[in-house]
Amino acid sequence: MLSFTSDYIAGAHPVIMQRLLETNMENLSGYGTDKYCAQAKEKIKHVFRCPDGEVFFLVGGTQTNQVIISTMLAPYEGVIAAKTGHVSVHEAGAIEYSGHKVIELEEKDGKLAAEDIKKCIKDFYADDNHEHMVYPGMVYISFPTEYGTLYSKKELTEISNICRNYKIPLFIDGARLGYGLESKENELTPEEIAELCDVFYIGGTKVGALCGEAVVFPHHNTPKHFVTQIKQRGALLAKGRVLGIQFDTLFTDNLYFEISKHAIAMAEKLKEVFHKKGYTFFLESPTNQQFIILENEKMKELSKNVEFGFWEKYDDNHTVVRFATSWSTEESSIDQLEEYL
Amino acid sequence: MLSFTSDYIAGAHPVIMQRLLETNMENLSGYGTDKYCAQAKEKIKHVFRCPDGEVFFLVGGTQTNQVIISTMLAPYEGVIAAKTGHVSVHEAGAIEYSGHKVIELEEKDGKLAAEDIKKCIKDFYADDNHEHMVYPGMVYISFPTEYGTLYSKKELTEISNICRNYKIPLFIDGARLGYGLESKENELTPEEIAELCDVFYIGGTKVGALCGEAVVFPHHNTPKHFVTQIKQRGALLAKGRVLGIQFDTLFTDNLYFEISKHAIAMAEKLKEVFHKKGYTFFLESPTNQQFIILENEKMKELSKNVEFGFWEKYDDNHTVVRFATSWSTEESSIDQLEEYL
Amino acid sequence: MLSFTSDYIAGAHPVIMQRLLETNMENLSGYGTDKYCAQAKEKIKHVFRCPDGEVFFLVGGTQTNQVIISTMLAPYEGVIAAKTGHVSVHEAGAIEYSGHKVIELEEKDGKLAAEDIKKCIKDFYADDNHEHMVYPGMVYISFPTEYGTLYSKKELTEISNICRNYKIPLFIDGARLGYGLESKENELTPEEIAELCDVFYIGGTKVGALCGEAVVFPHHNTPKHFVTQIKQRGALLAKGRVLGIQFDTLFTDNLYFEISKHAIAMAEKLKEVFHKKGYTFFLESPTNQQFIILENEKMKELSKNVEFGFWEKYDDNHTVVRFATSWSTEESSIDQLEEYL
Amino acid sequence: MLSFTSDYIAGAHPVIMQRLLETNMENLSGYGTDKYCAQAKEKIKHVFRCPDGEVFFLVGGTQTNQVIISTMLAPYEGVIAAKTGHVSVHEAGAIEYSGHKVIELEEKDGKLAAEDIKKCIKDFYADDNHEHMVYPGMVYISFPTEYGTLYSKKELTEISNICRNYKIPLFIDGARLGYGLESKENELTPEEIAELCDVFYIGGTKVGALCGEAVVFPHHNTPKHFVTQIKQRGALLAKGRVLGIQFDTLFTDNLYFEISKHAIAMAEKLKEVFHKKGYTFFLESPTNQQFIILENEKMKELSKNVEFGFWEKYDDNHTVVRFATSWSTEESSIDQLEEYL
Repeated sequence: MLSFTSDYIAGAHPVIMQRLLETNMENLSGYGTDKYCAQAKEKIKHVFRCPDGEVFFLVGGTQTNQVIISTMLAPYEGVIAAKTGHVSVHEAGAIEYSGHKVIELEEKDGKLAAEDIKKCIKDFYADDNHEHMVYPGMVYISFPTEYGTLYSKKELTEISNICRNYKIPLFIDGARLGYGLESKENELTPEEIAELCDVFYIGGTKVGALCGEAVVFPHHNTPKHFVTQIKQRGALLAKGRVLGIQFDTLFTDNLYFEISKHAIAMAEKLKEVFHKKGYTFFLESPTNQQFIILENEKMKELSKNVEFGFWEKYDDNHTVVRFATSWSTEESSIDQLEEYL
Repeated sequence: MLSFTSDYIAGAHPVIMQRLLETNMENLSGYGTDKYCAQAKEKIKHVFRCPDGEVFFLVGGTQTNQVIISTMLAPYEGVIAAKTGHVSVHEAGAIEYSGHKVIELEEKDGKLAAEDIKKCIKDFYADDNHEHMVYPGMVYISFPTEYGTLYSKKELTEISNICRNYKIPLFIDGARLGYGLESKENELTPEEIAELCDVFYIGGTKVGALCGEAVVFPHHNTPKHFVTQIKQRGALLAKGRVLGIQFDTLFTDNLYFEISKHAIAMAEKLKEVFHKKGYTFFLESPTNQQFIILENEKMKELSKNVEFGFWEKYDDNHTVVRFATSWSTEESSIDQLEEYL
Repeated sequence: MLSFTSDYIAGAHPVIMQRLLETNMENLSGYGTDKYCAQAKEKIKHVFRCPDGEVFFLVGGTQTNQVIISTMLAPYEGVIAAKTGHVSVHEAGAIEYSGHKVIELEEKDGKLAAEDIKKCIKDFYADDNHEHMVYPGMVYISFPTEYGTLYSKKELTEISNICRNYKIPLFIDGARLGYGLESKENELTPEEIAELCDVFYIGGTKVGALCGEAVVFPHHNTPKHFVTQIKQRGALLAKGRVLGIQFDTLFTDNLYFEISKHAIAMAEKLKEVFHKKGYTFFLESPTNQQFIILENEKMKELSKNVEFGFWEKYDDNHTVVRFATSWSTEESSIDQLEEYL
Repeated sequence: MLSFTSDYIAGAHPVIMQRLLETNMENLSGYGTDKYCAQAKEKIKHVFRCPDGEVFFLVGGTQTNQVIISTMLAPYEGVIAAKTGHVSVHEAGAIEYSGHKVIELEEKDGKLAAEDIKKCIKDFYADDNHEHMVYPGMVYISFPTEYGTLYSKKELTEISNICRNYKIPLFIDGARLGYGLESKENELTPEEIAELCDVFYIGGTKVGALCGEAVVFPHHNTPKHFVTQIKQRGALLAKGRVLGIQFDTLFTDNLYFEISKHAIAMAEKLKEVFHKKGYTFFLESPTNQQFIILENEKMKELSKNVEFGFWEKYDDNHTVVRFATSWSTEESSIDQLEEYL
């Protein structure tokens, strides 16, 4: 059975597994205080050119969004996000569970428009009753978005400027950051990502790790007693080494970007196959997730040999499905897929 | 200075003040266990024809919404509400503060459509990923709505049916319930209100009381240890008598409905005046709040002699303003207003 | 039936009722923005000699504790309190509901010892693992305590000094502040109360008002967007006038202190009666609450004619009961009580 | 450098690492729906003889305590725990963060007495004011305790009986369950553990896994929509396989118990060494954690060659330190330690 269900269907990249094995018997201190965590943090700060930054390792994406948002917002603040944002839809209300409103804005292909963010904030302050309303306290965007799309340099800069004008942090959810940075359409360097936002995370789970997300506060702006707040939210891993070693490996010899490059190459090939076969795309995604509109009959037939993600109903006869590539996608699988199509 | 700013600009209806005075020196037990609370509860259950119901008194509207929603929802549930609902916009995130998402739907004149509610719930259960999403656990509507509009009997029945099909409670925010029930366009009896929903509250603050809202669970369906949960949310009044006496008075000699009738009569007169003078209404409200579109110049001029509520910007030259009537609105004030117009 | 059950068994002091009546028909703005609130604030700042302070009016005691503690603490902080403190025992977990631990210390007659507070904080910082523990972020004391006892000037100063050394706020719950200030044993002026702490509240509910507590931040140290945070916790009264007028009245012509003086005089008389009759006191209270140890038989007999509060079981044959006086306690009631004893 | 700092200083047991490697390239579904999770669950239900039970995998201990307690308690309930319990002291207030009070009781060697639990619950219900207090809604104990001690069969049965009488769940924190079950002093079988409580977890992190705790609801009593609630708390691992494979391995060929047996054997040897050398034990621990009282001078000297945990100050000249053994403790290390002593 071929599988393109998601970018987390396999274990970890073999080099990561090897490093976990090699270091397995070392006695290391817990809770992220080991030397591998320290090394990994330095490497990340180097790659993202933020020497004054701070880096922390968490286990999963929803957890990371919850920890970041709930520690950076004041109680009276909410977070602005796209209606289709992960925090808006697919985290079972984790942000609201922490006491904060997700202020949902309309989006296009998963992206927020700078104009809309500005309007939302301006309207809030213009409202006579805003003392009775939720303060916009942060902007959340994902890069790539949940639809695989990317913000251009101009778009991200505009959003960043609005945030800075209004003195609210910009948070970039980088669960799939590597795939964004290595996309052919990407205009942004790691350095610019770190420069333009106030906090972001580098997804490990979806980019070759067993688990793990690296949170970066690039401007020496970590919330106070952050480790205690992580602990309080049940998110502090005892054997922090598991995260440290993985990220140390990912940021050694460019592995994180190599993995991403491979997935992007596979996605491009996949795209080609679908185009060649005359399939319709739901939208143009330049990253590792591809959204195709399938006739329901075709979908059923295909699913006998291929696993893919159900995305949403398109119309009564068609369905939007997702094909995702990752470090573990083999070229031969795509050739095989072509045959099935 | 004339004032039509809101329906809570004056103190309490004189009969309420008189009863508070008359009972002032009585020694009564605290926290809602006094005889006036008991009497008031019986009278309310009688008027709303729910002998098996339970009634509780709280102090204010946002508090009441927060207490009801957070005690009736399971942790994994959110509440469906109109985008313009009080809980969505004007409670400073009180629902999210209690850990729950407000699932906001599009509305028309402040009203939810049964169809949209049904679609929201159906789509949720149809989604393969709904385990990662917020369960729709309640429907919140206001009667009258924040725009003064009313659900017809058919509309309310349809919404009620959907809720019962999906076994989720229907909550009616009745902060201005009296004005809805006494509206000429109203099709619903108190009994039907109680029958069709699972919890509602009878607004006191905006209908003649100093403060106070009466929560009714009409079907013997009070959340467990409700008094403790009220206390835990800081919402249990020590001198519960203050609420008991007020509601006892409101539900003696039909006072609650007399007050509402008066406000509706004044609103009708007000409407007439504006119509006669050729003003444009933002929408047709059959209750005590009237929304008028004023030219900005006119608005400035008028505001020298009359207070009213700023509602929202209409366009660059016009503004939507709100005129509200209440028990304390005098006919002569409307005559006076006519002159100013 | 005589009643000494609590200090909130009657309505409001007649002067308050009269002022509510006199102002009832005035059109006033809502949510604490009216002129009576403004006046009351000025008077309170004058009496407590804190011209830079800010004053806010809330409805009840548990609500006030919850709002103050949850807005002043960081998420990773808890509040130090006596095991017998109101926040520790009798608020149904309102503080924990807001996400914060009550760090309970042993007490003597309801009072915390400066030494114990210091030890608690020092031990915390000395602990290698304190990053995994709740930060002590505030000290909560009540004045008078739940047992009617008072901190001496020396005791309060010591506690205040510890708080300032460790830069954590000292919060004085003054639900019965007047009775403390007017006690014959009291050594503290209003000014000193305001000076030594970082936030306190002046109880209205138990000192002659229908409801209401005045929160004072004496050192220009109000939490950011405090009104929004009050609203978010469901604690913002629409007709704020009800609180403003009451506190304006309480702080006009020294009424607050006259009420307190009267209650203290009555408590002294009550004490005398019990002493004369040979009853045993559970502890020596210098304020308006008296704790007596009654034989169970005697208790039953007495309760035919007198209402009082059950406090706790003393031993198999005795019970500790509470007699409370207030503005409404009449001298003749105590004479009558003497006869029953 | 020798290290006895904790039982989580090394990676995972080699067999676990090997299985992770072997399965690494398999395409598996996410979020705990893979076949390894399914297998592991079956094996656990078999070992603990609870065919009707349900098993879930979480990542860490504090997270597990937070998820279990917050999903099993009603909002008005708190959890009874020893003052020294992990949830009381070392989780940075994670339980309070979820809105619930930890009702702390005195303990002996880390253990709660059935009598004290009973008294706490009885006193609560006997209190006239208990509606204003936190309901005792669960009992939390750890087995072994934070001090390495064990409940006898009689003790656990008594506690279980009290819980059942009062219809509140008993929760056993088994972060080190294996070490308890394999202790020479242990009187309880896995089956009895499952039978006597309402929920427990089998610690993986401290018993040979990279991470992971297996939550067991033995009596078909899982909280509703538990997976959604896990997700909502940020605790649902995307690559659930990482947990499934580890627990599948731990419960294959008795590995979990073999690991535990080894650690216990090492602890016994360690104990012997300290006894032989005339050291004083802080308390008698029958499990893998040993608490020794060291002279401060000795402590400093020893720490040049050996790492161990600082526990608490004993007196001005002595310190209590902790030595922990695990699957990775080698006999030779203890011989080496003997020399250093």
